[in-house]
Amino acid sequence: MARALQLAEKGRHSTQPNPRVGCVIVRDGVIVGEGFHERAGEPHAEVHALRMAGDKARGADVFVTLEPCSHFGRTPPCADGLIAAGVRKVWAAMQDPNPEVAGKGLERLRAAGIEVESGLMHAQAQALNRGFVMRMTRGRPFVTLKLAASLDGRTAMANGESQWITSEAARADVHRLRAEAGAVLTSSATVLADDPELTVRHVETSRQPDRIVLDPRGRVSASAKVWNDGARRILLTAQSQSQSQLAKPAGVEVAQLDRYGEYFSMSAAMSELGRLKINEVLVECGPTLAGLLLQAEVVDELVLYLAPSLLGDAARPLARLPNLEKLSQRIALQWRDVRAVGPDLRLTAVPAATV
Amino acid sequence: MARALQLAEKGRHSTQPNPRVGCVIVRDGVIVGEGFHERAGEPHAEVHALRMAGDKARGADVFVTLEPCSHFGRTPPCADGLIAAGVRKVWAAMQDPNPEVAGKGLERLRAAGIEVESGLMHAQAQALNRGFVMRMTRGRPFVTLKLAASLDGRTAMANGESQWITSEAARADVHRLRAEAGAVLTSSATVLADDPELTVRHVETSRQPDRIVLDPRGRVSASAKVWNDGARRILLTAQSQSQSQLAKPAGVEVAQLDRYGEYFSMSAAMSELGRLKINEVLVECGPTLAGLLLQAEVVDELVLYLAPSLLGDAARPLARLPNLEKLSQRIALQWRDVRAVGPDLRLTAVPAATV
Repeated sequence: MARALQLAEKGRHSTQPNPRVGCVIVRDGVIVGEGFHERAGEPHAEVHALRMAGDKARGADVFVTLEPCSHFGRTPPCADGLIAAGVRKVWAAMQDPNPEVAGKGLERLRAAGIEVESGLMHAQAQALNRGFVMRMTRGRPFVTLKLAASLDGRTAMANGESQWITSEAARADVHRLRAEAGAVLTSSATVLADDPELTVRHVETSRQPDRIVLDPRGRVSASAKVWNDGARRILLTAQSQSQSQLAKPAGVEVAQLDRYGEYFSMSAAMSELGRLKINEVLVECGPTLAGLLLQAEVVDELVLYLAPSLLGDAARPLARLPNLEKLSQRIALQWRDVRAVGPDLRLTAVPAATV
Repeated sequence: MARALQLAEKGRHSTQPNPRVGCVIVRDGVIVGEGFHERAGEPHAEVHALRMAGDKARGADVFVTLEPCSHFGRTPPCADGLIAAGVRKVWAAMQDPNPEVAGKGLERLRAAGIEVESGLMHAQAQALNRGFVMRMTRGRPFVTLKLAASLDGRTAMANGESQWITSEAARADVHRLRAEAGAVLTSSATVLADDPELTVRHVETSRQPDRIVLDPRGRVSASAKVWNDGARRILLTAQSQSQSQLAKPAGVEVAQLDRYGEYFSMSAAMSELGRLKINEVLVECGPTLAGLLLQAEVVDELVLYLAPSLLGDAARPLARLPNLEKLSQRIALQWRDVRAVGPDLRLTAVPAATV
């Protein structure tokens, strides 16, 4: 199963909206077939592994990181393929996270007389597909909020100068996060202020991440660098196309969502992304959107790059939140990981309740 | 020498204003005498070790963490004691940090025909007496600034509620820092706002730390808890006693210092503490004093307890600094250490230039 997870990992940058899945077929203690899912529309991991194993699959043990599918999608059901190949036993690390189909693939195998066991290396399999699991179970992507600040929690000087608060090493690490998430989300405010590309440049990737802009008032122009080609591009706006002053950028999917106060409801915005089959997003934004996401409790992981410097109280804050009346109203998290990244620290925190 | 440093460590809480010193006497590979300096006015480490060794000191090797003294203070010079005992060789981890007397003790030993070697475990010996070294070389104490904040760099809510931002474990760790520094410094603003005791309660100590209050305008009352008995208490004020509206608290040393703008010159204030023989201070204060100390570049170490929570931009800042015009004007540090302390993180940073 460890080998199957390793194989699944190879699809980390490319499988969305599908899950990352790896499969290993073992007969008489020897690996006779293996494979992973690389891209939506292409064969599933089990198909690759069965092809490689050929006749040797008969009577073999199959280790697969996710319950084999039992329905016709763009490819035929893998459960049927395993049954036809005559395997002896299937080990699944986890069931299908979609509550409506969970267990049906394993049931189909059992009904065909194949031994089935589920749960081996379950935690690792869940972590590998935390985005797919979140979308299947809660209808929204797994949200990582990336922040970078000085040790006094400041992101930029009062005049906005911010390019070099954290190091080159920290910025390269962010590119890794972008590639792994597969989608980067930002706000119109950030696009208007910084015109970022939000592409992956400092690390290798087989696919540029999707780019998503929350732009309630339709202020982002079609020439913004964030729309540069290479991936899915999604504009979430409250403006209908007829209302918008700006041309619709070519190749950009436009989704319309009602405003909620000055902005969107963040839980509604995340559900909309779920509907658009976004598994995982890395959010790179300013203090307003960061504050809204935190308040709406849709941040599943916070990654803070902390530079060993102080900018002082006039500098820009990390997150705008309403003035708390009680300390108990604070956003409560738990530290999960700490690493040195060049001269900076990378601190990872998750909501206190989910640990 | 490692054993001698271990012994010196036993005086960590109690030797100030003297240095922490340990001494081990070895003859034919066996320890025949050892000792450490415990308290000013009491015998030096070498005296304890020579007493224990008795006649066995003749022809022995002496390991001492600091160059033996050559002058008459409250006790006779240790160099003479070692000469009289007829030791063969003296190993000193470091020379006396006072540039005016450095090397004179070793010279005296050499002149008496004793072999001398200096520098064994030098870095550890320096670290053990970083306060004494700082005072001898630069005339001021070693300054540790302790801060506690949420991950967005906030120390308290806008209304001032702050008691529970960091955990009980973090607060106990601060008591350890207080005991080790031997002196705690705060501002009149903090005394007026919180009336803290600044004593050591959650860890064992042989001595309560000195307490020092910077109070330019003489606003701290004699009944403030910070003056509770147990240690040296020092009030640094710009008010002469005749000007002050408030009674001089009993047993408190009052030092007068000219105002510099709204406050003191921080480098002048630290020099004054050096003159008062303070080796090391832990500063626990609000954003104003923290900002002044950082700007004056008299912070030698910053210890930040970081809670995994966010308070938002309306909450109180970590340090007040003038509005920066260029990012290059920021206070630049380097991370030196990171530890988990209960649910919080303890981050230690030092000035970028001194690493």
